[in-house]
Amino acid sequence: MSTGPVWIGFDLGATKMLAKVFDDDFKELGSKRRRTKGHEGVEAGLERIVETIEAALKDAKIEKEQIAGIGLGCPGPLDLDKGILLNTPNLGWQNAPIRKELEKAFGCPAVIANDVDSGVYGEFRFGAAKGARCVLGVFPGTGIGGGCVYEGRILRGRRSSILEIGHMQVIPDGPLCGCGRRGCVEAVASRLAIASAALAAAYRGEAPHLRKTTELKLEEARSTALADSVAAGDKAVEAIVRQAARWIGVAVGNAVNLLGPDVVVLGGGLVEALPKLFLEEVSRSVEERVMPSFLGTFSVVAAKLGDDATVQGAAGWAREVIQGRA
Amino acid sequence: MSTGPVWIGFDLGATKMLAKVFDDDFKELGSKRRRTKGHEGVEAGLERIVETIEAALKDAKIEKEQIAGIGLGCPGPLDLDKGILLNTPNLGWQNAPIRKELEKAFGCPAVIANDVDSGVYGEFRFGAAKGARCVLGVFPGTGIGGGCVYEGRILRGRRSSILEIGHMQVIPDGPLCGCGRRGCVEAVASRLAIASAALAAAYRGEAPHLRKTTELKLEEARSTALADSVAAGDKAVEAIVRQAARWIGVAVGNAVNLLGPDVVVLGGGLVEALPKLFLEEVSRSVEERVMPSFLGTFSVVAAKLGDDATVQGAAGWAREVIQGRA
Repeated sequence: MSTGPVWIGFDLGATKMLAKVFDDDFKELGSKRRRTKGHEGVEAGLERIVETIEAALKDAKIEKEQIAGIGLGCPGPLDLDKGILLNTPNLGWQNAPIRKELEKAFGCPAVIANDVDSGVYGEFRFGAAKGARCVLGVFPGTGIGGGCVYEGRILRGRRSSILEIGHMQVIPDGPLCGCGRRGCVEAVASRLAIASAALAAAYRGEAPHLRKTTELKLEEARSTALADSVAAGDKAVEAIVRQAARWIGVAVGNAVNLLGPDVVVLGGGLVEALPKLFLEEVSRSVEERVMPSFLGTFSVVAAKLGDDATVQGAAGWAREVIQGRA
Repeated sequence: MSTGPVWIGFDLGATKMLAKVFDDDFKELGSKRRRTKGHEGVEAGLERIVETIEAALKDAKIEKEQIAGIGLGCPGPLDLDKGILLNTPNLGWQNAPIRKELEKAFGCPAVIANDVDSGVYGEFRFGAAKGARCVLGVFPGTGIGGGCVYEGRILRGRRSSILEIGHMQVIPDGPLCGCGRRGCVEAVASRLAIASAALAAAYRGEAPHLRKTTELKLEEARSTALADSVAAGDKAVEAIVRQAARWIGVAVGNAVNLLGPDVVVLGGGLVEALPKLFLEEVSRSVEERVMPSFLGTFSVVAAKLGDDATVQGAAGWAREVIQGRA
């Protein structure tokens, strides 16, 4: 039981939500994870968020009154200043006033940030990029998310988050992307792009292990299934993953030429499932793409905090903002 | 004659150097332009810089003692903190301690910045992007320079400048770039790339006006010659310039997806010579490349300050740094 001020970190995901309670040194005191159930609508969803935080407080044996602030990592697009989820396709929500609701429920300030930005900030404060001057984070998943912490602050747009590295073009007139443009790295190197290409290979008889484990169902071709397939010797799948990692490296290299980070952090399920292969290919490809004068000025590392990056980063960032340092 | 504090702006170019004296409201009081003569070496060069500033002071009728600070826009790579020109291929200089020399000569603080960054900062403070939250500046010339002013500060690397937008890949395995990589936008869309492609067209008989005015000499194919050729109806040259502008738009669009600027400023000799064509093509190409959610969040504009951007920006930035605001 802690008697000092505590900070709440919250990660609002498409399928699950996670609340954690931290003391002022960011030691974890308690947590609660629940399913998100976005389809139940905004009102039920906000109530569910409040209840989840209450359950985490109970787990931590902490009173509401001890909360110094709440940080929320949320899927975009957001209105960062107003604290509103503008439109979250994965949840089906529109204009959810999440910050106001939480400030009302808990009587303390709340800060929202993009979920990827929160994760990058988490790695900067507590993880693989601790204390770096400039961190570029890249998280290949269903899409490819990016974020940048520059001299201690999350780089942001006027209203919402930026660093859309998944929408850097790597193939002129390439495959159609979910955003409506062509040749974005996300269209050819996200987990979804890799999974669908791998299933096509399996259909053609080039990936027998993957065929057996997924029965050619896209939903089954998760990161772990892809990693198992590579481990079992499905060479076609390995080649697809390597090619995707190289495209990611091109996008990262272009971004390094712009932002000059000290550390590039790669995270997400795919990187966790295939860390060696991913780090190796992305690093090589980045080194081939950056201007020679940038070589040796940055490192490419794997994220350390896994699923905790967003919740820790959201809490840490909220404290910086609330205490006026960011 | 001004009696208050004054600020010196200095633009160190490959062929000319320019010093200007500004009062505390950045009204110009005097100036001096001289040839750079980099081949005479570092020692003679630094002396020449001091003399040029002295001549500008004389022109302004200002005493040395009134100088509050000096801002220098210099070609990279630089050591920004130590104030050293590390290595300037265009001048043939190595490790020139420019800041220390000027502080000694004038007894006031001096600040160095990259020349392109200074120009972007100039447009942000005094020109086409006045007061924007985030400005991305792109200056196609012999190379393609970039800079970003984010919430009033020039984004920088640990040691030197960043925003190397000229080295964003727009063509996988494309033409070799001066940096040693392939397919950088600079390799296909700089003034140099455009000029050489235009001369090839002239050689093939497709650009009779350019052939006549340049006699196929690359040094004659300057921005004004290219603009004259387009105006005179050399369709092949117009097509080459439009294609280059579209490639620049791809690189800018990718950078907009990362940085979310409010204003994109295009400057440099080529843009000044062909403003309408360039703005039109780059804007269209940027709009085709950015994520649809970014449409309407930024404008693409032509630089306003011309050759004065760097000298004004260097002085303005020096004041911010010296007075502790940046």
